[in-house]
Amino acid sequence: MTLTTVSTAKAFGGTQGVYRHASRATGTAMTFSVFVPDHPPGTRLPVVWFLSGLTCTHANVTDKGEYRRACAELGLIFVAPDTSPRGDGVSDVPESDFGQGAGFYVDATQAPWADHFRMWTYITVEMPEVVAAAFPADPARQGIMGHSMGGHGALTIGLTHPDRFRAVSAFAPIVAPAMVPWGEKALGGYLGADRTTWRAHDAVALIDDGARVPALLVGQGDADPFLATQLQPERLAAACAAAGIDLTLRLQPGYDHGYAFVSTFMADQLAWHAARL
Amino acid sequence: MTLTTVSTAKAFGGTQGVYRHASRATGTAMTFSVFVPDHPPGTRLPVVWFLSGLTCTHANVTDKGEYRRACAELGLIFVAPDTSPRGDGVSDVPESDFGQGAGFYVDATQAPWADHFRMWTYITVEMPEVVAAAFPADPARQGIMGHSMGGHGALTIGLTHPDRFRAVSAFAPIVAPAMVPWGEKALGGYLGADRTTWRAHDAVALIDDGARVPALLVGQGDADPFLATQLQPERLAAACAAAGIDLTLRLQPGYDHGYAFVSTFMADQLAWHAARL
Repeated sequence: MTLTTVSTAKAFGGTQGVYRHASRATGTAMTFSVFVPDHPPGTRLPVVWFLSGLTCTHANVTDKGEYRRACAELGLIFVAPDTSPRGDGVSDVPESDFGQGAGFYVDATQAPWADHFRMWTYITVEMPEVVAAAFPADPARQGIMGHSMGGHGALTIGLTHPDRFRAVSAFAPIVAPAMVPWGEKALGGYLGADRTTWRAHDAVALIDDGARVPALLVGQGDADPFLATQLQPERLAAACAAAGIDLTLRLQPGYDHGYAFVSTFMADQLAWHAARL
Repeated sequence: MTLTTVSTAKAFGGTQGVYRHASRATGTAMTFSVFVPDHPPGTRLPVVWFLSGLTCTHANVTDKGEYRRACAELGLIFVAPDTSPRGDGVSDVPESDFGQGAGFYVDATQAPWADHFRMWTYITVEMPEVVAAAFPADPARQGIMGHSMGGHGALTIGLTHPDRFRAVSAFAPIVAPAMVPWGEKALGGYLGADRTTWRAHDAVALIDDGARVPALLVGQGDADPFLATQLQPERLAAACAAAGIDLTLRLQPGYDHGYAFVSTFMADQLAWHAARL
């Protein structure tokens, strides 16, 4: 495993880096960012993973997420992967919410997507090895969060790995992709028409099927234009209530779907993670 | 004066907007951003102007500056103009640190730049009218800051308008453009070969010629690759010492020239402004 450093800069006392590597999971070059707070030599720090939304790369949250001050104060490493494989040799449907920039955190089984769209394996198997090898991360203290499509990824990956992630949260997540247009397009396209295969990638279905975590935090703006059509957090609330999962659903009046919303509540949400790490 | 709203979003309890208007100063459409914190109806708030650097638009600091939390806490309106006129009908020298994205906060006197490159008038005359008319700004409580070329703009405009701006600060400013390559190219190109005309747009020359403000704050990373060649804050320190201006020069170890540096110290620098507004 070889990492290429794209850039590093001192920020809030720590180091904001951007790195590239040849991924065996996706068969492409993948770029990601990591913020490491200032810390005593030899110590290992808890890690928060941030999965981004449709159309995003690592750069959106890195530029606009305003997480560094909080991570520096709380002593958290912050890892921001890309949202899909990219490049000339990678299939795509431009301007479609599908394909490049829209990996949906699944391993595709359908042609032509199965060649490279293996974001589940990339995030759950390969990237943890990369982070453990190259950064002072404590694998026993990990949390995961995400935004929109990345909120879906954080919830499904967190629910599937309760022993790995002590804290799972999301901003404006797609909680039930099998029930909404973005998710139906993505899961149908990557996994095929058999909806039983979708259940492993739908947070509400995972909970209905028995997945459990101690607690979930979801932030959601009530002026989010996708709230009723694509996000529907009430489905997650119902599933958590039925399953006895302690869901904190923070409905924020007047906030929309973008990084103005995410950045406003990032520090609070990171503090929630830090208290559990 | 008609403003077109490009976008607004709730952020940190206030409103982050992006606006466009037809500028009479530049003869072009100009875009800028304004953050207005939550405030009681009818109250007017102090304003901090932020002038951006080479290649930037309003968007760089709006996306990466991390000023909203501090402005919300301190009750400051934050105004971020563009750095030059733009568009197909506007002269340019692409990839040159000159022309579009590099207005240098002067009124050009040389052809073909004099047609549109009137950023001094835009920032000092037209934009204050726009802000006073459209936002709850208190004109008696204004500060100005900027980054790199915009630090040059903040210093020269602040030194020239001591009755307007109670606080003047900069991140990694070009303090003596007449003495460094970026500035020689810009001032020579926009103002012509007669260097006596440059003195009104060179902070060190302005101080040497008698301009005074009570206090200046300059933040500067010591790993800034432009420190020795283009920025040379020691020239400002010498001029302030000779003039009796209270300069606080904060040399920050390990920080470079970019927004990782600016965002790290934005809240501190805004607090310095707020204490004077």
